[in-house]
Amino acid sequence: MTSAPRPLRLDKTSSGALRLFVLDQTRLPYEVHWLPLDSLDAVAGAIRRMQVRGAPLIGVVAAYGVALALSRNARDAGLARAVSELAGTRPTAVNLQWALARMQQRLIPLPPERRLEAAWREADAIAEADAAQNRAIGQHGLTLLQAHARERSNQKDRPLQIMTHCNAGWLATVEQGTALAPLYAAHAEGMALQVWVSETRPRNQGLLTAWELSEAGIPYTVVADNAAGFLMAEGQVDVVITGADRVAANGDVANKIGTCLKALAARHWAIPFYVAAPGSTLDFQCADGRAIPIEARDGDELRLVDGLDAANCPQRLRQISQTEPVANPAFDITPAELVTALITERGIAPASWEGLSRLYPELRHESA
Amino acid sequence: MTSAPRPLRLDKTSSGALRLFVLDQTRLPYEVHWLPLDSLDAVAGAIRRMQVRGAPLIGVVAAYGVALALSRNARDAGLARAVSELAGTRPTAVNLQWALARMQQRLIPLPPERRLEAAWREADAIAEADAAQNRAIGQHGLTLLQAHARERSNQKDRPLQIMTHCNAGWLATVEQGTALAPLYAAHAEGMALQVWVSETRPRNQGLLTAWELSEAGIPYTVVADNAAGFLMAEGQVDVVITGADRVAANGDVANKIGTCLKALAARHWAIPFYVAAPGSTLDFQCADGRAIPIEARDGDELRLVDGLDAANCPQRLRQISQTEPVANPAFDITPAELVTALITERGIAPASWEGLSRLYPELRHESA
Repeated sequence: MTSAPRPLRLDKTSSGALRLFVLDQTRLPYEVHWLPLDSLDAVAGAIRRMQVRGAPLIGVVAAYGVALALSRNARDAGLARAVSELAGTRPTAVNLQWALARMQQRLIPLPPERRLEAAWREADAIAEADAAQNRAIGQHGLTLLQAHARERSNQKDRPLQIMTHCNAGWLATVEQGTALAPLYAAHAEGMALQVWVSETRPRNQGLLTAWELSEAGIPYTVVADNAAGFLMAEGQVDVVITGADRVAANGDVANKIGTCLKALAARHWAIPFYVAAPGSTLDFQCADGRAIPIEARDGDELRLVDGLDAANCPQRLRQISQTEPVANPAFDITPAELVTALITERGIAPASWEGLSRLYPELRHESA
Repeated sequence: MTSAPRPLRLDKTSSGALRLFVLDQTRLPYEVHWLPLDSLDAVAGAIRRMQVRGAPLIGVVAAYGVALALSRNARDAGLARAVSELAGTRPTAVNLQWALARMQQRLIPLPPERRLEAAWREADAIAEADAAQNRAIGQHGLTLLQAHARERSNQKDRPLQIMTHCNAGWLATVEQGTALAPLYAAHAEGMALQVWVSETRPRNQGLLTAWELSEAGIPYTVVADNAAGFLMAEGQVDVVITGADRVAANGDVANKIGTCLKALAARHWAIPFYVAAPGSTLDFQCADGRAIPIEARDGDELRLVDGLDAANCPQRLRQISQTEPVANPAFDITPAELVTALITERGIAPASWEGLSRLYPELRHESA
């Protein structure tokens, strides 16, 4: 297990203080750069700028952010400020709020002098739990993929074709990923796969997925987000698997913008559409998707350079396109009715209150 | 009418020969450059490279390409070579085949010495007919938009919100456009509009639409293709209108990749989805969408530069991303059942054989 790649690691400075390093995901896949994060502000900034991204990873890094904050001020005010600043970085992924609540629950009862060490330990525990959950998601998802591969055993010569969206791989979590965990498990079992990787405009996180799959030796093809319907209509997609940033009590799923278009197309062409997410992504306080806040990000993310012409004079192109009026919602809601099932660390759940509350009975009392 | 912008014009060289100029659409919206086309090869190359694009415009420019070819060889072999080379440039838009067939029908019976002048005249006639058809599409579409505006008269303070895809404006035709013609007509009538312009990856033709709307003073907002479902779910889209590259006899529509995802989302959220196209886009020899050839374009169109990082080192980024395996289908099929109606120059037609053959009875005998 220690050989599985992770997007974060801890290191000790010469003075003995712990420091967090994260893979800078705005430089990937072009450059592998470990970004040192040694303060609350550094962590909050990295989350805001999406140098650290992915719902589960945001939660884990925020937990470490609390520890870093406490190393400067472990009193109640220091803890409160850390939680407040980190909670305000990004609104949609609930894992962030979940991790901060867990840190508070652990730390508030302790006297300040015992909080710092407890914070590092609790953040470590959250990280290890995430890695374990992802491995479990991988195994439950593997069972599904094996079933789908058996269903189409009359096409044994063709790999199982899986479409995903955005990046829900190990870069987005502590290890293995959510949506990609079943693919890694299937690849390890020798199953032949071919993965359709959507660009995922405007941030192109599909290139992160392409990089992960390339490193793992899993065959993949990058396509424009627009191509999803065409590929499904052509019979070139057997299964769709995405991650989630928040799942409401009724099974509605908030995930990267464009997810619901893939879910609608999958339904139209009778292709199973799975959402892989750990329990920390469930939010029973949201009765349905309408209660989930959707982040509107800076329009500059969309102001684009035409890839074909960029080599000529990108600076000029960018100046001109910066005059364009744009809107940049970062997530959308996939209605539960379009989700074939959720793949969680506790097993496969129908996307419904009944399905989720059977696997997560402890959440029932949180229902709005 | 003479003041309406056109993406092509004729000019005489000093020797008195006619020459075609087209707006180079790979340089727009960054640069307005008129590209001279003085030979068959120049025309075919411009169509292949999408310097000239848009189903109706491709047909018209190909007709002028025949005339340019005949100026060098007006015998049967010259005509046949011109038709063959132009027909092979792009497979999906049927307007190209339609225009070439019309040119052949007119020119083959003539003796070679009379063909050149007749070719220029026939190409002019095709161009003027396209402009007239687009004006008619604009008027028929205006009636629809007025009806939708009346339906939501309880929200008089909000503009009518229209989503389009790709560019089906005057740049894609001789004048006015197809999908955008009703918008221009509505704007001229003083109707308040707000247009959602999709980027249209991988070629970003949405920026052509943004440029057209900006020039016309019609408010618009550019969004990622991925945002279509979110906007519809939020109630921010009243009507969707796209163009078409080919309409099969049963009403299935081939249009720019991504169109069917918008149609599926429109159906899910009960939003009318219209396709604007002239008769030259109808192909009754295709019984349904499965018979329409879908162009697979060069994957380099997709190998992208991250807009956020391009200013730093675009050349390096492109080199790395050129190693990515990609697929680049350029069109998809929107099933007729998802199309609320077609807006043609002869009126509004249901997307069905009955609906289309009532308006275009002359096509009935072509049915496969």
